[in-house]
Amino acid sequence: MAGKVFFSVSMSLDGFSAPVSMDGLLATPERRKQDPRLDRWLAQWMELQAWIFPLRFFRENLHLGEGGEEGRANDIARETFERTGASVMGRRMFDLGERAWPENPPFHTPVFVLTHQQREPWERKGGTTFHFVNDGIHSALDQAREAAGDRDVRIAGGSETILQYLNAGLVDEFSIALSPVLLGAGTHLFDGVDASRVALEQIHSEPSPRATHLTYAVHPR
Amino acid sequence: MAGKVFFSVSMSLDGFSAPVSMDGLLATPERRKQDPRLDRWLAQWMELQAWIFPLRFFRENLHLGEGGEEGRANDIARETFERTGASVMGRRMFDLGERAWPENPPFHTPVFVLTHQQREPWERKGGTTFHFVNDGIHSALDQAREAAGDRDVRIAGGSETILQYLNAGLVDEFSIALSPVLLGAGTHLFDGVDASRVALEQIHSEPSPRATHLTYAVHPR
Repeated sequence: MAGKVFFSVSMSLDGFSAPVSMDGLLATPERRKQDPRLDRWLAQWMELQAWIFPLRFFRENLHLGEGGEEGRANDIARETFERTGASVMGRRMFDLGERAWPENPPFHTPVFVLTHQQREPWERKGGTTFHFVNDGIHSALDQAREAAGDRDVRIAGGSETILQYLNAGLVDEFSIALSPVLLGAGTHLFDGVDASRVALEQIHSEPSPRATHLTYAVHPR
Repeated sequence: MAGKVFFSVSMSLDGFSAPVSMDGLLATPERRKQDPRLDRWLAQWMELQAWIFPLRFFRENLHLGEGGEEGRANDIARETFERTGASVMGRRMFDLGERAWPENPPFHTPVFVLTHQQREPWERKGGTTFHFVNDGIHSALDQAREAAGDRDVRIAGGSETILQYLNAGLVDEFSIALSPVLLGAGTHLFDGVDASRVALEQIHSEPSPRATHLTYAVHPR
């Protein structure tokens, strides 16, 4: 049985899935001093993702050591990981991650990167191999489905990539961790959605202490 | 004991609390024929508010007759009404409502309208009286608090008025009925929020069949 195609992201109550820039994640102390916005953007990203960091699963998956919170949020994070047999990722998310992920990245499955760059597969510790796909979103999804077997394919991000798949009618369902924060600016997750083609069915909704976890099925209109 | 100041609105998953225009609500058949967008905008507004129309409370409050759904969504709609001792409203929402509400409007309390127009109070059937306030948002809120007694003051809308009160630090909490729909365009509820001053605390979150009902407390940053 073929798996589903889904995405799962954190979103602020005002609809942003990322701050204006992710540069704060990797900036040198010198650049931070020159541009104080970097710290603000980093703080916003931390707030957006705040529900994840304390979780036992998050620590375990990144080999940060024992401990961490259990409970529903932890179960949701673990289930999201466990259902994923392969991921598809945009070039910009990969470019950032290439510099930010540890040598044992958190995917532990094949990841198909949409890019114009020709590059041999890049194998990392812990079962993550990045494959570079040059012939479009359908090809990347086909390859990810094949690799995932009967598990699901996650469109990992960023939001531009997610929207490409959503507007093409290729997403079966998605989950949003709605964080109790207003960013005021940043990347609007659904900016550019083809609302005339995408209908949603609310299939699950539950709160955890730091977010509300929403799941929708996607139907054609 | 003084009541709280709150707002309660429906919002699409992509953050819109209204379609591009509300003109569809009152347009003549002739205008609809000339501008087919009117029907689309009206349909979007209906989708945004779809959780409300089937409720027993909605029918009862607008004197549409017996029947309607009970359950949590109905309880939430009824509780929102019952806690409200007075409302504050922007001029544009009033202008639309003046033409759209029935002669027994759904408020059944005093409503303070922010406007530059000088006008005597307008008393309607069923206990709704519109008072026209010319000296700003603080004055309107003071008058609404006074009228509400120990019940709460609702900032009824539209979103520009809601944002004025939110950014001024005058809102204690708010509720959002998050509708499972993507509009793609319209009025972004939080567009213009002063994110550097508004912090949120998620205090309640629960699904009903047609929406997820979120409640946040507002704190200064």
